[in-house]
Amino acid sequence: MINALILSADNFEDTELLVPYYRFKEAGDEVIVASAGRGAIKGKHGYEVAVTKSLDEVNPDDYAILVLPGGAAPASVRKEPKALEIARSFFKHNKPVAAICHGPQILISAGLLKGKHATCYLSVIDELKESGAIYEDGEVVVDGNLVTSRQPADLPAFMREAMKQLKQ
Amino acid sequence: MINALILSADNFEDTELLVPYYRFKEAGDEVIVASAGRGAIKGKHGYEVAVTKSLDEVNPDDYAILVLPGGAAPASVRKEPKALEIARSFFKHNKPVAAICHGPQILISAGLLKGKHATCYLSVIDELKESGAIYEDGEVVVDGNLVTSRQPADLPAFMREAMKQLKQ
Repeated sequence: MINALILSADNFEDTELLVPYYRFKEAGDEVIVASAGRGAIKGKHGYEVAVTKSLDEVNPDDYAILVLPGGAAPASVRKEPKALEIARSFFKHNKPVAAICHGPQILISAGLLKGKHATCYLSVIDELKESGAIYEDGEVVVDGNLVTSRQPADLPAFMREAMKQLKQ
Repeated sequence: MINALILSADNFEDTELLVPYYRFKEAGDEVIVASAGRGAIKGKHGYEVAVTKSLDEVNPDDYAILVLPGGAAPASVRKEPKALEIARSFFKHNKPVAAICHGPQILISAGLLKGKHATCYLSVIDELKESGAIYEDGEVVVDGNLVTSRQPADLPAFMREAMKQLKQ
């Protein structure tokens, strides 16, 4: 059993949070949803998800994988210094980070994508390139510990690679 | 690779269709969404899913597993004679059938639950019992080829058992 950490906020893309959330639980893993405040966060399509820990309560050493769903949530998560610190800790220890859609925006703000092969949602491509990443248009791009995808339709490939990272 | 068949209609419970849909694709399987008409069906939370085949075009022999998501969709699917015929064919050949939430309503209409251990959404319990099923309150109930769950929060256990059926 591993612990998976999902960082998000209100207006997340519902399936990009819920599909990984249920997938890790199917595998018998524990899933922690962390956000700036406690309570619940609400997706663009109306799904509510309980926040298990506030960002301040998260010790990144406790988790085997970091998942960054998309939607409008990353626009607020990227403003949280603790969220960027968590992302940097995962990269420092070479632990898997899986970001989809707008999720890579958090990694851009953390300055973690320079020289990395990555993909993202259409509207994020420009800032991804400006951050020094090598953009690729594919359902999933894997570069070391980093797994990125473009959109909800890529979730099967995204989760396949995320689960593979955990078996390594 | 196997072929998975999802039977649904408008007003499906979005995650109960999309989580299995993406999960089978993650495993490399083909997923067919069938409904009374062609085009697209829309979930209660607004997700649209393309219909791959109309019910009339479905030959149940082509599929290894049948998935029946919940929401308000089963109320219309259960009125389709071809849908009931498809469900009966799966039971006849002892192939896995996974129904969640209101999904078991289709099996009730097909007369397939007599003497079977099963679960379902709270509001479906009475008619499930009246159909002769042995109701159990659990995140997942497995009886031979039949896998049933109560609600979206049960999806991890539901998919774990559905995937296990395919490995047998």
